[in-house]
Amino acid sequence: MSPVPNARVLFNAIPQGVPTPGQTTVYDSSQSIDLESHPLNGGFLIKTLVLSIDPGMRTRMRSTEEKSYATAFEIGQPLEGFGIGVVLRSENPDVAVGKYLQGRGFLHQQYFVLPSLPFGMFFLDRHPALPLTTYVGALGLPGKTAWAGWKDYSRAKKGETVFVPSGASAVGTMVIQLAKLDGLKIIASAGSEEKVEFLRKLGVDVAFNYKTVDTRGVLEREGPIHIYWDSVGGETFNAALDNAAVGARFMECGQMTTLNSVGSHAITIENPMAIFGKSVSIHFITSFLIIPKHLEEFNRVVPAALVAGTLLRSPEDVRHGLECVGEMIRAVQSGETRGKAVVVLGEA
Amino acid sequence: MSPVPNARVLFNAIPQGVPTPGQTTVYDSSQSIDLESHPLNGGFLIKTLVLSIDPGMRTRMRSTEEKSYATAFEIGQPLEGFGIGVVLRSENPDVAVGKYLQGRGFLHQQYFVLPSLPFGMFFLDRHPALPLTTYVGALGLPGKTAWAGWKDYSRAKKGETVFVPSGASAVGTMVIQLAKLDGLKIIASAGSEEKVEFLRKLGVDVAFNYKTVDTRGVLEREGPIHIYWDSVGGETFNAALDNAAVGARFMECGQMTTLNSVGSHAITIENPMAIFGKSVSIHFITSFLIIPKHLEEFNRVVPAALVAGTLLRSPEDVRHGLECVGEMIRAVQSGETRGKAVVVLGEA
Repeated sequence: MSPVPNARVLFNAIPQGVPTPGQTTVYDSSQSIDLESHPLNGGFLIKTLVLSIDPGMRTRMRSTEEKSYATAFEIGQPLEGFGIGVVLRSENPDVAVGKYLQGRGFLHQQYFVLPSLPFGMFFLDRHPALPLTTYVGALGLPGKTAWAGWKDYSRAKKGETVFVPSGASAVGTMVIQLAKLDGLKIIASAGSEEKVEFLRKLGVDVAFNYKTVDTRGVLEREGPIHIYWDSVGGETFNAALDNAAVGARFMECGQMTTLNSVGSHAITIENPMAIFGKSVSIHFITSFLIIPKHLEEFNRVVPAALVAGTLLRSPEDVRHGLECVGEMIRAVQSGETRGKAVVVLGEA
Repeated sequence: MSPVPNARVLFNAIPQGVPTPGQTTVYDSSQSIDLESHPLNGGFLIKTLVLSIDPGMRTRMRSTEEKSYATAFEIGQPLEGFGIGVVLRSENPDVAVGKYLQGRGFLHQQYFVLPSLPFGMFFLDRHPALPLTTYVGALGLPGKTAWAGWKDYSRAKKGETVFVPSGASAVGTMVIQLAKLDGLKIIASAGSEEKVEFLRKLGVDVAFNYKTVDTRGVLEREGPIHIYWDSVGGETFNAALDNAAVGARFMECGQMTTLNSVGSHAITIENPMAIFGKSVSIHFITSFLIIPKHLEEFNRVVPAALVAGTLLRSPEDVRHGLECVGEMIRAVQSGETRGKAVVVLGEA
């Protein structure tokens, strides 16, 4: 068999502010691979099917000098992240040909070889009723993070109020449904009328478009809030702090605004005097530390509930082909996607 | 009986940075009072004996426009805070003459009339073996705050490491001893060699003078830290965050550096990427919300332990006379006191 193209997306330059396609990342189609004869050296060959474009990728686009829990991307090397793939060839007895894989460690490259399953990559037992992309959304890191974070930190009590910005994201969608099950009043925002409509379908009590309605005003009218699930940071975070109830729990799942600001990436609490009087607790969520102990319950409950339709999946924004990755990253970091951002390379 | 002087300390101007005696506050000896005939209108007359000069007074020296849990001081009115007094005359059947009172609501004034016991002012059952000042230190708000905060939030496990800056304060002294009882490795700092010596006496494993030894360096060598008890904020807070262990608990009891900075009073987390990966929780402590449920145990255990000497009291910096209040406030906010700051007006 003759070589086939093996395109990839390379990290090209550390961004200032929001990543720019063609500058922060470049699409490179210069390489090819012979799928039948490419040496495996005891490993296995993966065909990439789905790449998840996650907000958290932004934290890896930094200098390797800057300390963080997530390894920095290397300039000139392919991006890497969450995804789904299928095994085409294998010399590793633990990894059979035809198996689907999900989780961490997927290169933004059409084909690649691994020696063994890396930390965080698992076999995928695909349910025939669910689209493959579910495994990077409701059944992937976002769904699991929401589930574990809510169970560990929310201490939700019936009648309390929760605020979920980015409510139509894969994480937000799961958080909202867990809050609903716990009997909370739910305030949630999203960046388009279409997403706001979806929030209403989820049972959100106060759903609004943060691009046209002032978040602070909504919280002043509908708060105080007992639980805040943060993925945006910045002004929204401070508006939430200023409208926190006594004993409020803040779950920090990400601060996209903060990380995309040019210059300082510091988190700022503008008005500390207001929260010193309210016994507020702020919990920084680290998915891989909190998910393991909830995984058995998650796998038992969530796939079945998604199939039965008692849990809903978030909207998806699916684009096709590796060449869309750069633009998709920009759209995610700018809050412009129509749903959970996914790039599909193939279905099998 | 002829009138006697009734001096007071007035709030005079909102400070920028550290409060300045004679400017932020002024001592006023122009008034007098006839102790026998001053009308009580059904209330009672208090003679002020002890005033506690607390770090938290700084939050009240602000514009009344600025929202906070603690009421702002009014320009031209006496300061007010924690103290101890004795009842000289009473028309209130619930408050007998000769009773000692402790807690909130003490005017910085030699004599004053109250209609009834305000929120947070209690009768004091004085133990003869303990100096009166104990009731604004180990047995007052500082001791109770440390006790309740530790019990509610520390989740201390034997073998973990705790860092307590301001370790020789009344709060720090109690925190250190509770940590010791829980079997933790204790890192603590103070601002003089004398206080560092006291920390060693408490059993602190790594005691240092933060004025001569770099805090960040100590934490890098002796950390990571599982528990941080904050009363200072600023660089110390960020050095602690950067050296936090996975799952660390931060107790925010005050951020003196932050509140005394000129301009912004924002709390800044300089390097959020480092803590997003560590499941850190930050708990803002509000004394009056957390103390009540621990009070019965506190009153049963702590006074007896202080008398027996199984718990030690923090060093004290006692000055005599209302005219010392302004300077004492400055010293507290500058970290220059030799111990828990107390102004004594009289012993009975």
